[in-house]
Amino acid sequence: MDTTTIFQHGTLGLLVPGLFDGTITAGELLTHGDTGIGTLDGLNGEVIILDGHAYQAREDGKIREIQPEETLPFASVHFEKPDISAQLALTTQADFEQQVVRDYRLTNVFAAIRVDGTFAKIKTRVAPRQEPPYKTLVAATTTQPEFTGEHVDGTIIGYYAPHLFQGATVGGFHLHFLSNDHQLGGHLLGFEVEQATLKVQHFADFHVHLPIDNEAYLQEQFDNEAIDHAINKAER
Amino acid sequence: MDTTTIFQHGTLGLLVPGLFDGTITAGELLTHGDTGIGTLDGLNGEVIILDGHAYQAREDGKIREIQPEETLPFASVHFEKPDISAQLALTTQADFEQQVVRDYRLTNVFAAIRVDGTFAKIKTRVAPRQEPPYKTLVAATTTQPEFTGEHVDGTIIGYYAPHLFQGATVGGFHLHFLSNDHQLGGHLLGFEVEQATLKVQHFADFHVHLPIDNEAYLQEQFDNEAIDHAINKAER
Repeated sequence: MDTTTIFQHGTLGLLVPGLFDGTITAGELLTHGDTGIGTLDGLNGEVIILDGHAYQAREDGKIREIQPEETLPFASVHFEKPDISAQLALTTQADFEQQVVRDYRLTNVFAAIRVDGTFAKIKTRVAPRQEPPYKTLVAATTTQPEFTGEHVDGTIIGYYAPHLFQGATVGGFHLHFLSNDHQLGGHLLGFEVEQATLKVQHFADFHVHLPIDNEAYLQEQFDNEAIDHAINKAER
Repeated sequence: MDTTTIFQHGTLGLLVPGLFDGTITAGELLTHGDTGIGTLDGLNGEVIILDGHAYQAREDGKIREIQPEETLPFASVHFEKPDISAQLALTTQADFEQQVVRDYRLTNVFAAIRVDGTFAKIKTRVAPRQEPPYKTLVAATTTQPEFTGEHVDGTIIGYYAPHLFQGATVGGFHLHFLSNDHQLGGHLLGFEVEQATLKVQHFADFHVHLPIDNEAYLQEQFDNEAIDHAINKAER
């Protein structure tokens, strides 16, 4: 079991022009990691993978477990083995991110970020399911349902990536959330920690698997600048 | 032996501000592939890896075999198993690149490119060895020795990478050359094929290994735009 590598299927960039068709099964994805994040075929919600189980936060607010035969256009996973564990005092997301990058020297290093605990405030959003012919990522996510909670027990999971890899993935933080009672989840927009445990896992290796048998992927004419702008708009 | 993955140590981006210290040994690198390209510690020339042997093209025009304990700041390797083999008629580099991308549908796919044959013309350049404190890549490569040959038997080896990965590596083609008699080598600036065999190997997987124990790497404040411009200037 390789605990030094992030495995990523697809690129964030391929979502930008609307390549939302699933190109890896959840079953196959979970052979590459037990923990991670992603989205489902058709940009159908937000995926949270914890302890070998993959969950979908849907646009109606419901959380369900994903079946092995379901497919994803984009996901990042790893086998969990944190090298840092620390207690978090009261903090907001902006302070948290600055502090984590500085304290654990993440600037140019891939890392998994996991925070388990009680959150005074949580705010998420969930990408709404799209039908082909697909719109662009920015058009598809212009209006998204948002969900909020107070004094919620749950887990933040996701990644920090060096900004050099913006486009291949999200440069900086890309975090999802799932509450312990599976009543609240999605792409994390903001939070305040009440008390929680932070776990950080540094990676020397980033492994990208591309859908090179997918006709739409082969044909797409990507534009790096458009991808950069779209990620900053849609994934922050 | 994994023939579906390109293994890359370091990023092209880290060379841009001048992180030229070697951070992987040639011996370790060759466990990840028998074929590839790179540069040595101190930006000392151009590395060409063929059939499990790593060679250095030096700024004085000499070619020598690299020893296992020598180190590299950046290199890409793979285990050779081409999926395409084709005869090349008379062609120039510009025509060649356009044709290969189109015929073998490379636009968004990583591929190894190998051309064995006789070249009517070959032009290479070789990065000159630097001493710490290092200059930037652009400053270090402002003046570089160039080498030319006519009716040369040899091998072009290198990669095509999707432009989304510019910065992590060179977006587009990055090709080196080594003559059969080891009298001419370096970073390829131009060529005309007399007659040659092209081999293309498509990869679904790109694996980047970062020097996360290197203090200079951890501390560097990279600038994506500067990296993009510098690669276009120094690596074309």
